[in-house]
Amino acid sequence: MKSSVRDLAIFGGVKLFDSPRPVGQLDAPPVEDFLRLVKSAFDARYLTNGGQLMQTLEEKLCEYHAVGNCVTVANAALGLTMLMQLFAKERAGEVIMPAFSYRGLPHFARWAGQMPRFCDVDPTTHVLSPSSVEAALSEKTTSILSVCNFNSPGDIDRITAIADKNGIPFLLDSVYGQGASYHGKPLGGFGDAEVFSTHATKLLNGFEGGYVTTDDNALAEALRRQRNFGLPGMRPEPGLKFGYALGVNAKLNELHAAMALLSLERLDDVIERNRQRFQAYAQAVANIPGISIVPCESTRDERRNFQLAVLDISAEWSLSRDQTLSVLKAEGAAVSAYYSPALHRSEHCPPGLEVAEIPVAESLARRYCQLPVGEMVTLEDIGEINDLLLFLMRNGEEVAARLSSNGSH
Amino acid sequence: MKSSVRDLAIFGGVKLFDSPRPVGQLDAPPVEDFLRLVKSAFDARYLTNGGQLMQTLEEKLCEYHAVGNCVTVANAALGLTMLMQLFAKERAGEVIMPAFSYRGLPHFARWAGQMPRFCDVDPTTHVLSPSSVEAALSEKTTSILSVCNFNSPGDIDRITAIADKNGIPFLLDSVYGQGASYHGKPLGGFGDAEVFSTHATKLLNGFEGGYVTTDDNALAEALRRQRNFGLPGMRPEPGLKFGYALGVNAKLNELHAAMALLSLERLDDVIERNRQRFQAYAQAVANIPGISIVPCESTRDERRNFQLAVLDISAEWSLSRDQTLSVLKAEGAAVSAYYSPALHRSEHCPPGLEVAEIPVAESLARRYCQLPVGEMVTLEDIGEINDLLLFLMRNGEEVAARLSSNGSH
Repeated sequence: MKSSVRDLAIFGGVKLFDSPRPVGQLDAPPVEDFLRLVKSAFDARYLTNGGQLMQTLEEKLCEYHAVGNCVTVANAALGLTMLMQLFAKERAGEVIMPAFSYRGLPHFARWAGQMPRFCDVDPTTHVLSPSSVEAALSEKTTSILSVCNFNSPGDIDRITAIADKNGIPFLLDSVYGQGASYHGKPLGGFGDAEVFSTHATKLLNGFEGGYVTTDDNALAEALRRQRNFGLPGMRPEPGLKFGYALGVNAKLNELHAAMALLSLERLDDVIERNRQRFQAYAQAVANIPGISIVPCESTRDERRNFQLAVLDISAEWSLSRDQTLSVLKAEGAAVSAYYSPALHRSEHCPPGLEVAEIPVAESLARRYCQLPVGEMVTLEDIGEINDLLLFLMRNGEEVAARLSSNGSH
Repeated sequence: MKSSVRDLAIFGGVKLFDSPRPVGQLDAPPVEDFLRLVKSAFDARYLTNGGQLMQTLEEKLCEYHAVGNCVTVANAALGLTMLMQLFAKERAGEVIMPAFSYRGLPHFARWAGQMPRFCDVDPTTHVLSPSSVEAALSEKTTSILSVCNFNSPGDIDRITAIADKNGIPFLLDSVYGQGASYHGKPLGGFGDAEVFSTHATKLLNGFEGGYVTTDDNALAEALRRQRNFGLPGMRPEPGLKFGYALGVNAKLNELHAAMALLSLERLDDVIERNRQRFQAYAQAVANIPGISIVPCESTRDERRNFQLAVLDISAEWSLSRDQTLSVLKAEGAAVSAYYSPALHRSEHCPPGLEVAEIPVAESLARRYCQLPVGEMVTLEDIGEINDLLLFLMRNGEEVAARLSSNGSH
């Protein structure tokens, strides 16, 4: 507990945490379980190219997401890129995507020969706004990409209706959607396809990896062909409704499948621990004026995974968002700005692309701070962070003055 | 040993091999060594995103290839694609590449926004022919991609001179180049960059994975940025001599690095066993008219890795190449045609691209058969295959007649 401003690590005080408290999930099964599965794959001398563990994982994920097809891929980025390429049908067009989202998205669109068309997000759900999508639709649109957030999958019904009406494929990046539902149905079977990640920092941990879910059998077949170098070929098959499938090496190997299989069994417990961590933040911050925790609610019918804890810093808080980040980071909380800056204002906007103001995205990108979560963060750690926030509430003006006089913030 | 044509498996006889004898290297260290390294990475809770094992692997590969930079990637396909994208500097142009090569190459060029420009290969080395490159060069050329074969890296000096004179980046796919040299210097430091694979079927086995070697520090820096989602951004940095770097998730994680590190220690022994297998084929086939083994020679000064054994089937052999493949496959030898059909005649030629005759490539693609090699193939297995070839030498006409009357060949 800090007793004076001088005790803050940013001013030379002792750090709150010896080792950084991360913002990723980082759950891991007992190492012996993992090594046993790896040994079985090793002994079978079958470690990549569609092995038994990968097949089992795909079956179990179909069940989990209540969807007809699961196509595992080496990582979610490749899955998104493959879908944007297929959906574009050889046209150089535009992919509609949120301006308040992950930095990789415009890169993936460019690989697929597309330009990103940045749209605004809903101020409550933070997901692609249907009216913004409607305004952005044009002859050039080759697909619509919506990114589900941890607290909401967005207005899937309205975007689906817009996509259907205009004959545009609709793709969901459901990176934060494992364990979440829409109208009581698990995410996985919405739009034309959904993409999930199994990176170590995500809810389902395969170290690396990802998967695409879809009820469209022809699309699944095209993806299976694409992930294995596009064998047997580039040309569209008769009756195939997609463009030609550019091949890539995007196979998920047995080591990642082994880890993801073990992680899948642990998912419910992980979500329950996430909920406890989230509540610990939310309850404490509720009593601190000027800041709040972005709400996330789970009911029996509509489930969320509580994967993130995002601090919303208002103008009434005496420190700026970036000052707050600096103070927390210095203490060993590996906090980060959340989707900031907005993509069209970032180094990830393709050079030469001029984009007008996107008001909600720009405002959100200035306000949020991602707090430490996941399996490396205890409830005691969260108690310490909450105490620190209380300390900043009481001493924020002095801290801000001192940071300003240091000239570094 | 077959005593009559009826004994051949293709006509209902007993198979020579219970389990298929593959054409990949498939070397593996003792599983305990691997599990120990995996456990160390697991215990460190650091499994991807540039861990310690990956860093050690990059250092050791720099030494092995006598080159300044090694950038590991999730697979060689991504490494090739990233380089073609960087070298194109935002232009939609052409990548010069051999027509007699791996089926993925035209796909990777298309991902990078380029069209493949197929060229002929040298009839002896089977590598991109310098005169064919000169004839194909145009305003559209954005890079030259040469693929080193197991028996030769090709005429690197002449292609380098052509590339330099025209200011075109020169990229080597050295997938068969581990343990091989050019002018006595290990492959790895030639052209602007070389790309190697660590797929399980390759000499250096990381299950999956690959790496780029280059003496160009700025290029290595651009690749490191690219493989991690293009962070910190898409825009060229001041003074950077490449185009903007589209980001992708191409990080090599600790599990693959662990395996590749163990495999690297075994490389010299693997090459020696390859040499013995190669000699066993070459000596036996030398006495069989109508077929030969594509030569591969290693001297103290110029090293080769003997990774493949390729059967060259001439018109004098009484069976066609495809008939020979069918007979061998039926016996459980997982043989395959080698780079066949030529790329411009295959399903991997981009739809709409018209290509004139490329004579050497087309001829080679009709003649070759890749024989079983690697750690799953014993010298006794090779003796059996050689006996089978001798049997076909003596009974080829009867076999051919029977295959033709079956109507299936």
